[in-house]
Amino acid sequence: MKEISERLAALREIMRRESLGAFIFPSTDPHNGEYVPAHWEGRKWISGFTGSAGTAVVTMSSAALWTDSRYFIAAEAELEGTEFRLMKERIEGTPTIAEWIAAELSAMERTAGGAKPTLHYEVGIDGMVWSAAAVESLKEELRVAAGITLRTNLDPLRAIWTDRPPVSPAPVTVHPLCYSGVPAREKLQAIRQQLRRSHADGMLVAALDDIAWTLNIRGNDVHCNPVAVAYLLIASDTATLYVDSRKLTPDVRAYLKAEGVETDEYDRIGEGLRRYPEYNILMDADEVNYTLYKKVSCHIIPSASPIPAMKAVKNAAEIAGFRSAMLRDGVALVRFTRWLKEGLARDASASDPAAPIVIDGKVQTEMSVADKLTALRSEQKLFRDISFDTIVGYADHGAIVHYEPTAETDVPLRHHGLVLIDSGAQYSDGTTDITRTIPLGPLTDEERLVYTLVLKGHIALEMLKFPDGASGTQLDAIARSALWSYGYNYLHGTGHGVGSYLNVHEGPHQIRMEYRPAPLHAGMTVTDEPGVYLEGRFGVRIENTLLIRDYLTPREQTGETLSPTPRFLEFDSLTLCPIDTEPVIWDMLSPAERQWLNAYHRRVCTELSPYLDSDEASWLREACRSR
Amino acid sequence: MKEISERLAALREIMRRESLGAFIFPSTDPHNGEYVPAHWEGRKWISGFTGSAGTAVVTMSSAALWTDSRYFIAAEAELEGTEFRLMKERIEGTPTIAEWIAAELSAMERTAGGAKPTLHYEVGIDGMVWSAAAVESLKEELRVAAGITLRTNLDPLRAIWTDRPPVSPAPVTVHPLCYSGVPAREKLQAIRQQLRRSHADGMLVAALDDIAWTLNIRGNDVHCNPVAVAYLLIASDTATLYVDSRKLTPDVRAYLKAEGVETDEYDRIGEGLRRYPEYNILMDADEVNYTLYKKVSCHIIPSASPIPAMKAVKNAAEIAGFRSAMLRDGVALVRFTRWLKEGLARDASASDPAAPIVIDGKVQTEMSVADKLTALRSEQKLFRDISFDTIVGYADHGAIVHYEPTAETDVPLRHHGLVLIDSGAQYSDGTTDITRTIPLGPLTDEERLVYTLVLKGHIALEMLKFPDGASGTQLDAIARSALWSYGYNYLHGTGHGVGSYLNVHEGPHQIRMEYRPAPLHAGMTVTDEPGVYLEGRFGVRIENTLLIRDYLTPREQTGETLSPTPRFLEFDSLTLCPIDTEPVIWDMLSPAERQWLNAYHRRVCTELSPYLDSDEASWLREACRSR
Repeated sequence: MKEISERLAALREIMRRESLGAFIFPSTDPHNGEYVPAHWEGRKWISGFTGSAGTAVVTMSSAALWTDSRYFIAAEAELEGTEFRLMKERIEGTPTIAEWIAAELSAMERTAGGAKPTLHYEVGIDGMVWSAAAVESLKEELRVAAGITLRTNLDPLRAIWTDRPPVSPAPVTVHPLCYSGVPAREKLQAIRQQLRRSHADGMLVAALDDIAWTLNIRGNDVHCNPVAVAYLLIASDTATLYVDSRKLTPDVRAYLKAEGVETDEYDRIGEGLRRYPEYNILMDADEVNYTLYKKVSCHIIPSASPIPAMKAVKNAAEIAGFRSAMLRDGVALVRFTRWLKEGLARDASASDPAAPIVIDGKVQTEMSVADKLTALRSEQKLFRDISFDTIVGYADHGAIVHYEPTAETDVPLRHHGLVLIDSGAQYSDGTTDITRTIPLGPLTDEERLVYTLVLKGHIALEMLKFPDGASGTQLDAIARSALWSYGYNYLHGTGHGVGSYLNVHEGPHQIRMEYRPAPLHAGMTVTDEPGVYLEGRFGVRIENTLLIRDYLTPREQTGETLSPTPRFLEFDSLTLCPIDTEPVIWDMLSPAERQWLNAYHRRVCTELSPYLDSDEASWLREACRSR
Repeated sequence: MKEISERLAALREIMRRESLGAFIFPSTDPHNGEYVPAHWEGRKWISGFTGSAGTAVVTMSSAALWTDSRYFIAAEAELEGTEFRLMKERIEGTPTIAEWIAAELSAMERTAGGAKPTLHYEVGIDGMVWSAAAVESLKEELRVAAGITLRTNLDPLRAIWTDRPPVSPAPVTVHPLCYSGVPAREKLQAIRQQLRRSHADGMLVAALDDIAWTLNIRGNDVHCNPVAVAYLLIASDTATLYVDSRKLTPDVRAYLKAEGVETDEYDRIGEGLRRYPEYNILMDADEVNYTLYKKVSCHIIPSASPIPAMKAVKNAAEIAGFRSAMLRDGVALVRFTRWLKEGLARDASASDPAAPIVIDGKVQTEMSVADKLTALRSEQKLFRDISFDTIVGYADHGAIVHYEPTAETDVPLRHHGLVLIDSGAQYSDGTTDITRTIPLGPLTDEERLVYTLVLKGHIALEMLKFPDGASGTQLDAIARSALWSYGYNYLHGTGHGVGSYLNVHEGPHQIRMEYRPAPLHAGMTVTDEPGVYLEGRFGVRIENTLLIRDYLTPREQTGETLSPTPRFLEFDSLTLCPIDTEPVIWDMLSPAERQWLNAYHRRVCTELSPYLDSDEASWLREACRSR
């Protein structure tokens, strides 16, 4: 707490010198990624809030942090004792950042005396860590709210963050063709073809996962995401990777050269863009940072990058990789679940709901079971890392949507209630993301009801058939309607794309309430993860990662040509892991839902058993038995 | 056909004189309404296409008409033998209007010779019949597609449409407070309050139904829509109705004056706007026509009109009116359905599926049963008009989504297959909109399957509970998923708002695949009308008009306060009319769906019976019996 107030004091010293009324710290970096390298975690450093999404705003006399519903409970805890007030995004009554700044500054200026308050302070940001689009809309909001202007060229952290971590020097590696399926040279050609459609001669790629996908390279610069910090400038006959040259081994240099990719130093991207003054360069204002966007001399075609939609549709090699990775991930998950459930059943104090669970001679906590799960995954072939920090939320911690146990929050698991485990791994051939909610002993009626409703929502989406090109926004309610009937809901999205040994959150498609127009197509991955979170009580989420594939409708099976919608799609679960049936209220499942669950379990059992020993296989058979 | 070619020749004469390469005729009018007064039906006049939505484009050597899927079949028929090519909107491969014009003009200029084709023709429109927003986007599309510029100040119809109908002189009437519920004076105050939130001093209202709603007046200038052609200029302390003074009786003048509304001539709206040079006037660029939008000298706040969202939430008097109107409409519909079904059963040739249906001694056709239905409705108290041209589509005509029988297309009904009847009425206390699909004899398995799937979709939406503020886009798939499983779909929306003795299509909310962000709230009306249309075979649609109301969830019933979604909504059917159960494949309905259908029928029977004679009541009891 003292640390935060010292940091704020240092910041305010600079703000005073620069006549800034407020400074805003986003949770983004120069590449506008969801997960940012430690070097750019300025919002975390200034506020102490560790969640992945949030914006900190500091005025001379106040401070506030905006975040979304996933982090309300966590942020409340982390901000306690600091100056920062929590601002709950998308909740009635929460001011926007611009509104709040306007109110704070005018209050401040009134306090400072003067009969007629005029706002003569500017608001500061570091334009390098904001997307161009975000800065433009912030500018407009500040202007409308109170005629405040924005200064975009200041990074106060440079002076005050004395132990700021450097950008990682981790080496770039080549992602083999057996996993990527398509050579970088061909991907570059395909991108150029897309660019010509937008009348662009080239494009600047700033998104790290788009660069990794395009060039079939991987890195180790972002926590859990195998990407390298770089820019990629694609011109009509050249492509240049701007990257710290210390990250490139001779082999990687040779590989890039062979694929037609030149290299230059990371901080020479500005000069690089100036090499093409006559060019029409496509830049995605949601991706490229404001400072760079404003720096270039070429003509900008402000358009969405074509790469996310290309990357989202997995090729045959990537799909084969996913299936293979999911088998190994499934084996690790079965071993983990069996270890947990057999262990707690064997525990001498199993009959006492209040007793902590002891397995392998020690009290098991949220953190210890997370470690156990990671250990079992790391025994699997091609394991590289976890794909995000494992969430193990026991009882009321399960209601904190993006809870990660830490030394301060860790609690023992006890012989009652539900534990929510959301985890995933990076394998060389695929990325996994799965949530299971596991009963540890007696459950309340409400826990059973909620578990069953979430399962119904999960199954409804898995069973859905839908037109090719539908958007995730259209499908989202399918996973919610069972919950809605009982007055439950969740404020996070229902699904996101998953990368192929790449970021666990991938666009452009998403299944969520908010409008996401990106059409769904065969070959895309997407998660199915409805949940319910009852603050102070428990949380339930059930998540599989799905593949979208063609669906042969009954009409087509009789030889009919479909009209007016010529092509339908369905989901095929990539995730292979039993769904706990202990909490299910069976009367609430329809025959079709029960049939789906039995068929899924049959498939899980059949596909995983060959990789299990006979004790494990017989445990799995029981977990998967037909109901 | 000859007529159309003569009209095109006359148009091209003007185009040649004005150096126009193309002229575009939209289906809109100066008030951007869906249904346009005959005076502005220029697109219909030039092309011969009578559908409500479509855009005609004429170049010196070609002509094309864009329309949506509802009209594909009808347009194909109506355009046959003319120069007009049908362009199917939202179908893969259909060029945009700008793309087509660019291609046609460059082909034309190549034909004209010259090694390097340069486009020196402009494209013309009449800016009075286009919304400002539509013109801006058309301009941009033409510029991007081929650097073509747009001329907006020409109405060629003035010269060539010699028998153009005048604007209707029908009188304005006052809509009584017992039906409107809120005095005009209060509505004006509420609008001004909304305007202040947008920092606007006033607004120009061009939408005829918004004017009618605000001032509690009605008119007779648009087919089936009880509105008057006018503009309304709301300033901070005055409101002026710009309307042809011949439409105002002394009583209406006195009424308007008493509500604080001045009047001026219709064509003085330009001068009216110039009375407020210092004003910030809100103008909805989707509503106000381009010519007027560009004419004003005041500062424009380009923002969505607040009125549609206010009008959409019905007050207690309006809801009571709807319920009362629906009872009378239900009585007329029951009498009609009984007449049809008892009549066809009594027909001597009932056993011959190919025989025409004879009732009351005459062969019944699509048109004759439409007339019968209107006659039965017109016997009801407070009946004013039908709310749109009755659709009676027998067999393959049912697959033409917006088919209206005409003397040329009318066919006898026969003793087999399905007839789709979509109809509605204007009563002084409410507007109705209902579709029923009725079996006339033996059905095919496919007809039964499709009927049952459409019914399942209809019921799924009626049963849905959903969060307050959800958008129609989120709910749309609920009505479709049963159809999707079998490879069926429909390209029209699932639902639209319905006015209170006003337009049968009302926004801002809609339930449809395309993004419509307007939030749903208690008090709104919305239709539920999934359908399936199999070209050349048959069509099925089942539609009720619903009211959105608060839903008390099971959680609240036990005293819990809801979180994170504090308020849920449900639908309550306003429409009271049995749904034909003869075609239903009962095994395909879930217990919950069957329960809904039985409960709905119990309610229909209970509510309508008091208004029926005993023979009618016993017919209704049988139609509504529990299954």
